[in-house]
Formats: sequence, structure tokens, C-alpha cells
Amino acid sequence: MKITLIGAGNLATNLGAALHQAGHQIQQVYSRTEESASRLGRLLEASWTTDMAQVNAESDVYILSVKDSVLQELADQLLVPPTSLVLHTAGSMSIDTLPQKHRGVLYPMQTFSKTRLVNFREIPCFLETAEAEDIGLLRELAGSISDKLYTLPSDQRRFLHLSAVFACNFVNHCYDLSAQILAQHDIPFQVMLPLIDETARKVHTLAPNEAQTGPAVRWDENVIARQIYLLRDNPTIQHIYEEMSDSIHESHTKK
Amino acid sequence: MKITLIGAGNLATNLGAALHQAGHQIQQVYSRTEESASRLGRLLEASWTTDMAQVNAESDVYILSVKDSVLQELADQLLVPPTSLVLHTAGSMSIDTLPQKHRGVLYPMQTFSKTRLVNFREIPCFLETAEAEDIGLLRELAGSISDKLYTLPSDQRRFLHLSAVFACNFVNHCYDLSAQILAQHDIPFQVMLPLIDETARKVHTLAPNEAQTGPAVRWDENVIARQIYLLRDNPTIQHIYEEMSDSIHESHTKK
Repeated sequence: MKITLIGAGNLATNLGAALHQAGHQIQQVYSRTEESASRLGRLLEASWTTDMAQVNAESDVYILSVKDSVLQELADQLLVPPTSLVLHTAGSMSIDTLPQKHRGVLYPMQTFSKTRLVNFREIPCFLETAEAEDIGLLRELAGSISDKLYTLPSDQRRFLHLSAVFACNFVNHCYDLSAQILAQHDIPFQVMLPLIDETARKVHTLAPNEAQTGPAVRWDENVIARQIYLLRDNPTIQHIYEEMSDSIHESHTKK
Repeated sequence: MKITLIGAGNLATNLGAALHQAGHQIQQVYSRTEESASRLGRLLEASWTTDMAQVNAESDVYILSVKDSVLQELADQLLVPPTSLVLHTAGSMSIDTLPQKHRGVLYPMQTFSKTRLVNFREIPCFLETAEAEDIGLLRELAGSISDKLYTLPSDQRRFLHLSAVFACNFVNHCYDLSAQILAQHDIPFQVMLPLIDETARKVHTLAPNEAQTGPAVRWDENVIARQIYLLRDNPTIQHIYEEMSDSIHESHTKK
């Protein structure tokens, strides 16, 4: 398919590379800055522009992969042939952010960093179109880069995205708080990796609720009180410790 | 070596099985209840007792692997030959919880569940002895079951354990909160696994601070406000969302 990509961030870069590798023709890349537009244009063998008025009118699919805060504005500026499919890639944004009739969503649920390439085929992609007739084209496009396709309406997708914030962003912040405590006591973060890996592996076969261990689920008040005291110089971390411990206790007593 | 095991919980079971497999002779198992003492005794081809006064006096090593809250009491009741080494396995307890002269700690840092066996050789084990002369014996014992040995004094170990609470127990609770949100919207938890795996893999090559993604690190206040609103019927989860987002923001602005 002929594709135009609006955006050049982490997700746009990974998605563009996967589409290019799958044999699609990336016609053009738009980005606000010349540097990132030209960089991604070269990578994807596409022309590039920094002017929404210069976006070409010959693509089958236009993909907006930009920050949530500018999505609406850019979508409103996008002039495309009336039969082309316009997609966005944002987990928490409604399909109706897009004003075009043939609109849809392709949300690849993964954590992307510029310094790390991920295997797109394993990434669950959540699909939605406004017009029933467009879902075939969207499935064909998404199926060319991922083996894990799901259709999901905007109402559920925003809860999926919220849930991913807990399972990925907040999990990573727990790793970070762990690393901060270790660094303060000259212990290398590396020693934590086998525990981190096993904690992730465990929920492949046990529900997280069944996999829970530690002082909070045992409600070992001596250990909890001592650990709260150990965090007395870090009020933010101390507060998170208390909230998380209370929430674990609550999740395991209300059953 | 001839070993006596005091305790029959998740850790005692996994540790006893690893020691038995490594060729040590587990002489006796103590547990408060007949059911668990006899179960683990049979598993390890050892005699068993529910009476601390009946603990045998012929072992080279006595390992107390019990709940933190009863460790002191059981250690005080333990009568052993003056040359035997007495160990506990608790991350957050000082070596001096043990009254014996030849005392030490063998803390295997991992999350253990009864329904899941783990490969002990990959588990980092943190060692400490009160008498310098005992460290050789402890290293020999621990080295027979794990390839990852570290010596660490009690003062640092309690921070290591605290840090593990964040990297394992709180991480798992984030998985659980994610699963709770998904369940409320009829989305299977299974779809979250590729994201969970990548989030864990990522910190093998990037520091957690560098690996952070999501609305909080971008400080995308629109998304954050909307997600807080989505959680309005779950005040506990909503509060955790706010605390974690603020803490991520704080960690990334103070640099």
C-alpha cells in the first residue's frame, strides 16, 4: 500500500520501519522539525515535509503517529482524498478525534525507545474503524507487520491503555525506585535482574493476584514498619511504600 | 554436609529441595504443624519433628527458614553443638537475631510460590557470617546450590530486601491493578504479557530511569487528567495513579 506517515517520534519510527520492511511504499513523512522529518524520510526511502499543506494526496493510508496533545490539530489540517483511510496510533484517544469519514485506529501496545528496536510481529495491535467496510483494509495492513491483531472500540481501548500504564510505566518506575535505593547503598542494580525476570515470567502461568508475595500480602506489620522507617529520608518513596502495601492488603482481604 | 532445616514454608521447601538435590544429607525437618513437617520430611528423605526440644544435635549446619515474626523466638530455643553453623534466610533480619556464636545468613533473593519451582542456580544468594572463619563453609554450602554468591552485611542487606519489595512485590501489584482494570472491561490479561516481558527485558540494557515511557514522564497533563477521571470509581487505584505519576515526574525533573 502507499502510505503517508505524519510524525517521526519513537512509535512513528518503529512503525514506519516495520511497514517499510513489510514491502509497503512510504510515500512521505511529515514532522514539525526538518531534522526529524529528513532523518525518518531517508530511513524509509520517502520524501519529507514540515508543512501540513504539502502533504501528498496520493496515499491509500495516512497514519498520524504524534503526541496526543497535537493529534486533533494535525488531523484537522490533514487534507486527503475522500476514499483514503486515515489512522491514528494513540491508545487513549477516541477514533472520533479524527474528522475524516474513513477513519480508524491502529494501536500497537508496546514501550518504544529510540535506542532499542523491538520485534513488531509480537506486538499486540488493537484495531478500530468508523466504517465497517474499512476493517478489511486495516486488518490487511496491520497483519502485514504483526501476528497479534485484536479489534477493540475506543471505549475499551482507553481502559486498555490505562491498564498498560500500570503494567509498564508504573512497573518501570518501581524498578527505578528499587535502583535508587540500591544506588544509595552501593549495591549494583544488576543483582535485581533474576528477580525481575522471574516476577514477569510468573504471571504467564499464575494470575498476578495469586503470584503476590512479600511482607504486605503476609501483612507482616513488623517488617512493614521497619521498612517505612528505613525510607524516612525519602518521603515520596516512603509514601508510595505505604500506599502500595495498603493496596496489596486491601486486594487480598476483600476476597 | 549434614543439615537440619527449621521451617517448611515456600522458601524452606525450595531451599531444602535444592540442598537435597546437591547431595547434602537433610537430617531433620522441624515445622510447627505435623502436616507440613511430615510432608517436607518425606520430600527430603529426612526425619521430622514439631518439637524444638527434639531437634537433633548432629548436624553441621542448622538453617532457620521461618517467618520473620517467629525467627527470634525459634532461634532462642535452638540448642546446637557449639561448633555447628546456624543460619537464617531472611532478607530484612539482622544476623544478630541469632544468639549463637557461629551464626550466618544465606538470603536467596527470589519470589517463591508453592505451585512453581524455580532454578536455584540462577538465584543471587547473599551471604554473611559473624565469625570470619565461617565464611568458607557458608560459601561452600551456598555454592553447591547457586552460581551467584555475594557477601553483604546486614546493614546493606535490609536495603537490598527493601529494594526487592519494590522490584518484585510492588511490580506484581502493578500487574494486579492492571489485571483488575482489564477484568472490569472484559479484556483478557493475556494481551498484556508482551508488554510486561519487554518492560522487564528493557532494564537489562537500559537503566530504569532511561527506559521510562508513558504520560507521566512526558508530563502529558491531558492524558493524566483523563486517566485519573477514568479511575473515579476506584479511589485506592486512583490515588496510586496520582502518586506514581507525581513520583515519575519528580524523578525526571530533579536531574
